[in-house]
Amino acid sequence: MPGIGPKTAQRLALHIIKRSETEVQALAEALVEAKRQVGLCKICFHLSAEPTCSICRNTNRDPGTICVVADSRDVIALEKTREYGGRYHVLGGTISPMDGITPEQLYIQSLVQRVSQEQIKEVILAIAPSVEGETTTLYVAGLLKSFTKVTRIAFGLPMGGDLEYADEVTLARALEGRQEL
Amino acid sequence: MPGIGPKTAQRLALHIIKRSETEVQALAEALVEAKRQVGLCKICFHLSAEPTCSICRNTNRDPGTICVVADSRDVIALEKTREYGGRYHVLGGTISPMDGITPEQLYIQSLVQRVSQEQIKEVILAIAPSVEGETTTLYVAGLLKSFTKVTRIAFGLPMGGDLEYADEVTLARALEGRQEL
Repeated sequence: MPGIGPKTAQRLALHIIKRSETEVQALAEALVEAKRQVGLCKICFHLSAEPTCSICRNTNRDPGTICVVADSRDVIALEKTREYGGRYHVLGGTISPMDGITPEQLYIQSLVQRVSQEQIKEVILAIAPSVEGETTTLYVAGLLKSFTKVTRIAFGLPMGGDLEYADEVTLARALEGRQEL
Repeated sequence: MPGIGPKTAQRLALHIIKRSETEVQALAEALVEAKRQVGLCKICFHLSAEPTCSICRNTNRDPGTICVVADSRDVIALEKTREYGGRYHVLGGTISPMDGITPEQLYIQSLVQRVSQEQIKEVILAIAPSVEGETTTLYVAGLLKSFTKVTRIAFGLPMGGDLEYADEVTLARALEGRQEL
């Protein structure tokens, strides 16, 4: 399990053993129940207990803007900013031939379908800038460009960041991406 | 002295005491000599042993672009990227009324003079995004806008950064500063 090393694993195992059987039974059932209830939204593929997620069902959100992310975790991170009022599309990962992840295994085809069939004003690609992320961004942008405006989030100095402590690639991207005031 | 706490101070003091008198004398002279020789470039106010610094004297560098930074440390950081071919202007700090630093105490007047008298195509403001940094950026931009194009470096996700681990303000700025692909 992610983030759990041998020490934490032992601590958790001992904690489970010390509990009463009813409590352990309840935890086991909760796990199975969570797995059973939570599926993917059939529109944007974000985690959802209903057939469509709460963001896709929210009529206050702009249906003309789609923010494309790699993972459901990224939706949660972007929602915390309270800055984005559009909808999402979760790809389910990034293209990575080394790990055997091809575009066909991601929800890219359904994104192209959404963009070609709905009235979409803008697609914002919000994929982290790793090698796989850049590949995915360029691949998806190439597929969508003929249908609508495609943008990507800015890369540069993080807030509170100091020029002195920023790595060279970040500084170079910050210079390259400069904007007129 | 910055970065030196009580323990390091004690270690350094004991190290000095253990050395021979000639060695300590040499260190003391080197300190005074360094202070005496290193001054500020009279054009850009970057640290320099000559009246003008090596960047201002370099004829291969574009004299039409000025990158404005708060400190000489930032010049060193930007030079490491090897991405910037223009010149610099070091303000010597950021506007901070709380610490009694007003615009008059910084090299802002000389920047306005440079921009108004030379053929400057673009001024890039590369000041870290703190409260003082933002104030300085807006103040300087206001003074220069009538003379030339004023841009600022991009703020957003740092390279290798993950959306999930980025703070909310950085993510919001990354969304806000998105660029068309």
